[in-house]
Amino acid sequence: MSHQQFSSSLLENAVNEFAKLPGIGRKTALRLVLHLLKQPESVTESFSNSILQLRKEIVYCKVCHNISDTEICRICANPSRDKMTVCVVENIKDVMSIENTQQFRGLYHVLGGIISPMDGIGPKHLEIESLVTRAQNDGVKEVILALSTTMEGDTTSFYIFRKLDPLNIRITTIARGVAIGDELEYADEVTLGRSILNRVEFSNSFK
Amino acid sequence: MSHQQFSSSLLENAVNEFAKLPGIGRKTALRLVLHLLKQPESVTESFSNSILQLRKEIVYCKVCHNISDTEICRICANPSRDKMTVCVVENIKDVMSIENTQQFRGLYHVLGGIISPMDGIGPKHLEIESLVTRAQNDGVKEVILALSTTMEGDTTSFYIFRKLDPLNIRITTIARGVAIGDELEYADEVTLGRSILNRVEFSNSFK
Repeated sequence: MSHQQFSSSLLENAVNEFAKLPGIGRKTALRLVLHLLKQPESVTESFSNSILQLRKEIVYCKVCHNISDTEICRICANPSRDKMTVCVVENIKDVMSIENTQQFRGLYHVLGGIISPMDGIGPKHLEIESLVTRAQNDGVKEVILALSTTMEGDTTSFYIFRKLDPLNIRITTIARGVAIGDELEYADEVTLGRSILNRVEFSNSFK
Repeated sequence: MSHQQFSSSLLENAVNEFAKLPGIGRKTALRLVLHLLKQPESVTESFSNSILQLRKEIVYCKVCHNISDTEICRICANPSRDKMTVCVVENIKDVMSIENTQQFRGLYHVLGGIISPMDGIGPKHLEIESLVTRAQNDGVKEVILALSTTMEGDTTSFYIFRKLDPLNIRITTIARGVAIGDELEYADEVTLGRSILNRVEFSNSFK
């Protein structure tokens, strides 16, 4: 498709722009653009306005650094959420994933990444200082570390743990174990080992 | 993902808009939107401008009804193309496919669809009258029918054939046969039969 002959440079531009998006090849880009061309003009207008407006007006919550329409995000501003429990995550996608479980009623703290010396990302590039300040001043009782169990995730968790440890607050991490629906036979040894060490009372397991 | 909790309605709008595109689910939509958010604002601007401009400024060539930036498209306006040969196709994607082969130096005629009574599309909805007028007045010597070999495609080809037949111009259709690289064993009988009937001189076959 690299030699694609376009009879219209307007079409070519639009296809090129779509093809810049991750995971969208030139064939898909063409299909999407031709789809928009078939719809009424208002469809294209509301499509482009929504992303332009998002890009121009979006802000990050001053408290948790989650994506937000306002200075303080919906979650932090919600009076019914438990302000004493803060869940630390890497990015806003993780906030959404946890919110979707509907199992967490506390607040979040979005680091904006994880410590990764290979990518030149150190603690200074992340919202770690603001987490410590928050933990010191906002009456936080528990910080839940919900980072990936990769080398970088573990490093970040440990770095945060050492920063928060002197503050006399509870520091927890999410449970690791065999996923629900998975067969033991196919679970890796480390996960299975961890799930045995961190076993829970059977009577609590189906709550 | 239907219960996805968004902390931002701007984000939610943008994801909804992306998810309206064909083949883009809500997870992909979210990934694309977050990608745009990570890029400089100019990326989002040039992206939305390109599609807005396309939708507002695009025209259809007065001669061949192909998509175009100008009244007469690049192909029709190209003096080095053979104006005596017109290839009839269903839509602009077919024009691109044929242009990509770099084997055709004539002009096109885009019908804008094919006859499909089931979808309520009759000859009147397509650019068939304008094709006949073109064939009568523009010194056309040959019309190549390059429609799909479906029931609807064949119906349309035959309808056009009957309209053009009295005009004393050559009417051809693209060759059907076993695709290059395909094994005979897996070719369907109709295609294989057609490829035997329409066999060509071996000395011509690798030109």
